[in-house]
Amino acid sequence: MSPTGPRAAFRTRLREAVEAHGPLCVGIDPHPGLLSAWGLDADPAGVERFARGVVEALAGHVALFKPQVALFEVYGSAGLGALERALADAREAGALTLADAKRGDIGSTMAGYARAWLGDDAPLAADAVTLSPYLGVGALAPALDLAVATGRGVFVLARTSNPEASGVQSAQAWVAGPGGSPPDTQRSGAGHRRMREVAQSVVDALADHNAAHAGGLGDGSAGAVVGLTRGTTGRDHGLDLAALGGPVLVPGLGAQGGTPADVAAVFGASGPSGALGEAGGPVVPVSAREVLTAGPDHGALRAAVGALNGSLTG
Amino acid sequence: MSPTGPRAAFRTRLREAVEAHGPLCVGIDPHPGLLSAWGLDADPAGVERFARGVVEALAGHVALFKPQVALFEVYGSAGLGALERALADAREAGALTLADAKRGDIGSTMAGYARAWLGDDAPLAADAVTLSPYLGVGALAPALDLAVATGRGVFVLARTSNPEASGVQSAQAWVAGPGGSPPDTQRSGAGHRRMREVAQSVVDALADHNAAHAGGLGDGSAGAVVGLTRGTTGRDHGLDLAALGGPVLVPGLGAQGGTPADVAAVFGASGPSGALGEAGGPVVPVSAREVLTAGPDHGALRAAVGALNGSLTG
Repeated sequence: MSPTGPRAAFRTRLREAVEAHGPLCVGIDPHPGLLSAWGLDADPAGVERFARGVVEALAGHVALFKPQVALFEVYGSAGLGALERALADAREAGALTLADAKRGDIGSTMAGYARAWLGDDAPLAADAVTLSPYLGVGALAPALDLAVATGRGVFVLARTSNPEASGVQSAQAWVAGPGGSPPDTQRSGAGHRRMREVAQSVVDALADHNAAHAGGLGDGSAGAVVGLTRGTTGRDHGLDLAALGGPVLVPGLGAQGGTPADVAAVFGASGPSGALGEAGGPVVPVSAREVLTAGPDHGALRAAVGALNGSLTG
Repeated sequence: MSPTGPRAAFRTRLREAVEAHGPLCVGIDPHPGLLSAWGLDADPAGVERFARGVVEALAGHVALFKPQVALFEVYGSAGLGALERALADAREAGALTLADAKRGDIGSTMAGYARAWLGDDAPLAADAVTLSPYLGVGALAPALDLAVATGRGVFVLARTSNPEASGVQSAQAWVAGPGGSPPDTQRSGAGHRRMREVAQSVVDALADHNAAHAGGLGDGSAGAVVGLTRGTTGRDHGLDLAALGGPVLVPGLGAQGGTPADVAAVFGASGPSGALGEAGGPVVPVSAREVLTAGPDHGALRAAVGALNGSLTG
């Protein structure tokens, strides 16, 4: 399968969808409270009607759907069956899906998770999956490689907005090479070394992966998850996304307190002047509750999406 | 439900099982190669016969079963259905189960994962679940709290043996308080501060949780996953497990190169002289392939388990 064949690279397809509909990613989060508001039971049948209802209302109107796997998994195999049918609906409608599963393991186990979410014949196949790198970005290679091979994508947690995260994501390790400033830089017999934050090391590893696969079916296949917090990017202790060369998923819009203005402030305008530079992106902000509370009426759901996309691009 | 009521704390039940059968935890890992060796197809029916066969052969002969969730999830909802039935078999046989799912998220999503694996009425309910702390141990609170409430357990990834892990798990952050040695300690106007590794900070957070719940239904409910690598514990850059006050799951036996002698060398004898002290433990080493290749014959599986438990306690 060539990059210009029947399936283009995930990032190419995502860019086209963002151009057509705006950057918003709509979370499919069947929380019990939302199910109740939609007149549905908190059971596998209710979850299925909810998820397929969101797809039916919004396919062709949003760039990306992001089902929250935990909220299906709580119903066990029956809940995952509902997710399979919602993913199939989206596939048939030509809508892109990102399974928010935050999986991460090593070796043949990681290969299992990769096939589960990114395999061409997998019942749960999505266009992309979120991954968690506590075992190292390198351990996620089976998923990154399968994404390249199949024209799919991954979004790896880099820096999240929750306050408990800093003990892991802001910890620092020495790396070889120039850069940094005292006291976080040292000169030794072997040359310079500097300290790098865990979150930055995740971004850098994804950047290396994307640089090695630019232009092909795996172009920009390794995305990052970066929370919508002012100060996330920028000169002081900021995350440098300029070399990422892939898309950025931005949770935190709406219910979690972030605004469309924050997206512009943190990530800048798209294109060369933005935090991701010309080779990176797109930046895809997520909203779930703010959209879903407008349902189940299809027109109201579409209006909510249109309003958010308007304020994100306006 | 009181600690001495119908269900004791998970760690109490695990200790009793280890005393009865030895410390070995048997992984239920339906790899395609193993399925083939057992004469089974790599499909949901094959996975179900494999997993339920392991439980049928070994319930009452091992302390703990650890199904590897990824290898069920690869078959989608049908694979998870097979896992549900294997977990139910173990429950009926009175055998303890640890779902190796490595889940981790925040807020209501984390609460979903907690209910999925630790909820009394969940189809996938196990006695314990593995968690991944890239979002911070604090973000895993819904699972730690539900484990306390239901007499179940969690095992949080702390330090793993895979080479890609060190960039995250060995990164360091400043924490307040005395300890440490130059150049990794500083004195400022506000007092001492020292650097602490991410892996140690995970262990310390679990220790705090266990200290707050000692003696009740949540006694020792927060365990750690620590790889079987020489040098993991000990004076130099070692992990200090003395205050953990909970069990330790040790992958790496057998196929991953570790030996029973390594378990003793790294974690010491059980009891006051071991790395976990009197209040910690038990230490539960995992083997999957080395046991499972002996199957599907029940006697051969039991013999493999008996031999490994013998060398772990001999």
